[in-house]
Amino acid sequence: MLTLDLNCDLGESFGAWKIGEDEKIIPLITSANIACGFHGGDPTVMANTVALALEHQVAIGAHPSLPDLQGFGRRRMGLTPKEIYHSVIYQIGALLGFLKAMGGTLHHVKPHGALYHMASEDKTIALAIIKAIQEVTNGEAKLYALANSPFISIAKKEGLKVVNEVFADRSYQDDGTLTSRDKEGAVINSYEAAIQQVLEFLIMGTVTTLSNKKIPIQAETLCIHGDNPHALIFIKNLRQQLIKKGVRLQPPS
Amino acid sequence: MLTLDLNCDLGESFGAWKIGEDEKIIPLITSANIACGFHGGDPTVMANTVALALEHQVAIGAHPSLPDLQGFGRRRMGLTPKEIYHSVIYQIGALLGFLKAMGGTLHHVKPHGALYHMASEDKTIALAIIKAIQEVTNGEAKLYALANSPFISIAKKEGLKVVNEVFADRSYQDDGTLTSRDKEGAVINSYEAAIQQVLEFLIMGTVTTLSNKKIPIQAETLCIHGDNPHALIFIKNLRQQLIKKGVRLQPPS
Amino acid sequence: MLTLDLNCDLGESFGAWKIGEDEKIIPLITSANIACGFHGGDPTVMANTVALALEHQVAIGAHPSLPDLQGFGRRRMGLTPKEIYHSVIYQIGALLGFLKAMGGTLHHVKPHGALYHMASEDKTIALAIIKAIQEVTNGEAKLYALANSPFISIAKKEGLKVVNEVFADRSYQDDGTLTSRDKEGAVINSYEAAIQQVLEFLIMGTVTTLSNKKIPIQAETLCIHGDNPHALIFIKNLRQQLIKKGVRLQPPS
Amino acid sequence: MLTLDLNCDLGESFGAWKIGEDEKIIPLITSANIACGFHGGDPTVMANTVALALEHQVAIGAHPSLPDLQGFGRRRMGLTPKEIYHSVIYQIGALLGFLKAMGGTLHHVKPHGALYHMASEDKTIALAIIKAIQEVTNGEAKLYALANSPFISIAKKEGLKVVNEVFADRSYQDDGTLTSRDKEGAVINSYEAAIQQVLEFLIMGTVTTLSNKKIPIQAETLCIHGDNPHALIFIKNLRQQLIKKGVRLQPPS
Repeated sequence: MLTLDLNCDLGESFGAWKIGEDEKIIPLITSANIACGFHGGDPTVMANTVALALEHQVAIGAHPSLPDLQGFGRRRMGLTPKEIYHSVIYQIGALLGFLKAMGGTLHHVKPHGALYHMASEDKTIALAIIKAIQEVTNGEAKLYALANSPFISIAKKEGLKVVNEVFADRSYQDDGTLTSRDKEGAVINSYEAAIQQVLEFLIMGTVTTLSNKKIPIQAETLCIHGDNPHALIFIKNLRQQLIKKGVRLQPPS
Repeated sequence: MLTLDLNCDLGESFGAWKIGEDEKIIPLITSANIACGFHGGDPTVMANTVALALEHQVAIGAHPSLPDLQGFGRRRMGLTPKEIYHSVIYQIGALLGFLKAMGGTLHHVKPHGALYHMASEDKTIALAIIKAIQEVTNGEAKLYALANSPFISIAKKEGLKVVNEVFADRSYQDDGTLTSRDKEGAVINSYEAAIQQVLEFLIMGTVTTLSNKKIPIQAETLCIHGDNPHALIFIKNLRQQLIKKGVRLQPPS
Repeated sequence: MLTLDLNCDLGESFGAWKIGEDEKIIPLITSANIACGFHGGDPTVMANTVALALEHQVAIGAHPSLPDLQGFGRRRMGLTPKEIYHSVIYQIGALLGFLKAMGGTLHHVKPHGALYHMASEDKTIALAIIKAIQEVTNGEAKLYALANSPFISIAKKEGLKVVNEVFADRSYQDDGTLTSRDKEGAVINSYEAAIQQVLEFLIMGTVTTLSNKKIPIQAETLCIHGDNPHALIFIKNLRQQLIKKGVRLQPPS
Repeated sequence: MLTLDLNCDLGESFGAWKIGEDEKIIPLITSANIACGFHGGDPTVMANTVALALEHQVAIGAHPSLPDLQGFGRRRMGLTPKEIYHSVIYQIGALLGFLKAMGGTLHHVKPHGALYHMASEDKTIALAIIKAIQEVTNGEAKLYALANSPFISIAKKEGLKVVNEVFADRSYQDDGTLTSRDKEGAVINSYEAAIQQVLEFLIMGTVTTLSNKKIPIQAETLCIHGDNPHALIFIKNLRQQLIKKGVRLQPPS
């Protein structure tokens, strides 16, 4: 039976500033990546987001970031692997604090923004994050990372459970990487095309690259954006089509 | 047998900024209150401080603060009890992350600076901190708070284990509170007088107040300052005298 | 001829977080209070907001705050008057940087949130802010502050130009202060009543207090909220009625 | 007559954290680069540092940084040139606020840490900083930048006044760049060798590179480190030798 996890970044508001439609998106997804204070998510936002995730029984993950509120964790920063290792321990620990207080267990960790990309490009950074996850969670939490990336293969080799993440609305290069956002064709704007890409992931186990090649890809979790009304319509359509095709939506076990 | 815990705030450096003589003070104390990032202590500083505490086998405590790096957590801030509750969960959780990764268990929590004082004055804030400690640590961590304060009595009533904290270098009022720093006679500058005050705490179970009354006081842990060379000399002298009197220096069990 | 200034806090977004409908509100107001980075307004947001204010030719003011991004400058903090003096110099200076680079002059300063309230209650804080404004602007910028408050009278005595600020949607106490938000009747929810209050300010020079007394009040600038669609409808209605009554909307000269 | 400016980064403390021996170093230098809050230097520290610089009549410069307190501005960050442009305007403006309040004029701008290096490597970043300086200071402030770097030549071409900065304790490569700190021979540990290098700068107009070539170099300002006791001894020795050789120590006019 085909299965798919739908994950979304949540709890990225901060103080008086709201971002994302967390209450509307959470009934539509199966796992939540919760911001841990470094790019969004002050302690009260974190508590509210954990409560929301518990109520809707989605899998709870940590969403650690570089320490850059102003840049929303999207700007690369020259932290050393050691600094990254400590920063990830700190953030996962903080989320575990709320889980201890409110119930629930940590299911996964998905690095945020620039940290996600840096880990796919630099082995020392990948290893720093992997070690942090293993040590803080006794190896129990899974890593969500870019499907087929070096980050995934390094994590596997280190004995961490991994979940391959794919994107509906982004095109792929022949080497399995995402087309960079500054290049034409990077974003798939048509809902039909985006849904088609997801179905190809699941049914064929392939993706048709921007240059029209078919390459194998393992799709275990789909990254969902929940920060605009269009996103909500898209995800509802996608869910309908997936369910119609018999795909079971659930977090990786 | 007389016993006393010597506690000191550690890990309050931040990035390139160093504060405190952590390496020199830690062999002289029995429990460490480790800053958790809100007034000092970035993730790398926290990791290094936990390593130091483990190496010297001192009891490890969390030292949560109001979110005020610029003010070093010493300025009162109008957080709601709910915000304080969430902020304490966050900070204890972050420290637990390092303990999970590096070994060690959380022995106690001592609120820092303005938060320490606000909790002694406002019952709703005291309760918020108490609840956070109980929930994140399953009631296992002890609270270090001002001896004889309402904070202590509220925590006891809520079922939390408490440790009464006393000061060698501060004078006391007849109601058992510390003399405010802006009043004359607040600080005891003579080493002999300070050591005498500690011996009176332990041997007589009393303190001689600024107005020369003797009031009962329970001394379980002594707050040690480690941020200047004089402090180091004082604590060495104090330790000698305490050991000579047969006082056993150890963390509360 | 009756005149009134309509002022609104602008530029309070930060990084990826948007707050306020700045583009929609600015054509409807006559002076803008621009956040300076301490409660909102990173450098890029500030530049964009100054550009918007210049384009719409509204009077430009600085909107300095306590240093509290997480609390949006709404939480009281125990800064010393000296720290407040320096913080206000810093923030006005930063805004002047953009005015030097982009054109425009600094018309006024309106303290934000908790700082606004603290200055109305504590003379040493009022004086710290007044001195900062005088020194950085050579006494040229005006102070916007609560009508009839001690802050206004202290500023006048110190020789600073002042502008009395009134509120359409808040009720007043017999002593001229605003009814505290935690009391019943603090907020005026009916548009008609709110507009009526503004007309009474202007035509009668009085306000009818919550206890139904009429007290004198000087209305020079009206505080406009621009952070929700209802606010936009209200301000449009209010403008129509004011213009119909022959009120000239313009910044204080 | 030979002249040389001695510049030093000052005002890099933050809140309770002290760094640098500002009071001891300032009588020995001729221009001060004052931190503006992004990597150090809260508003009170800035005010105190401006007061110190005015008292000792050294030339006052802004020392803007990337927004990274935790990393002390030493970590590269992926800000866009536009974000850098706005950040530099903000920081220079903030310092100008203190100069307006306290007297003094802005003599120069020296970017800090990673920003200094990024500007020497990336033309779009160099141009962003140059534009900010020109616009906020009407082209009156000078730029301090690495001698012979592209940053210097771009700034000259844009019409900004430049001052070539050299280092006593760093070795040079044949292309005029500094030897990277992670390479052997990057740092010159011998005082004699360091002083010799400065004398060669001034008397011969050359530097002997690590590979033993002599290349031309223009030495207008020397970067002085003031954060340790050794630095103070070194700078005193250096001053004696320079004065003995008839070098006039003064800021660039």
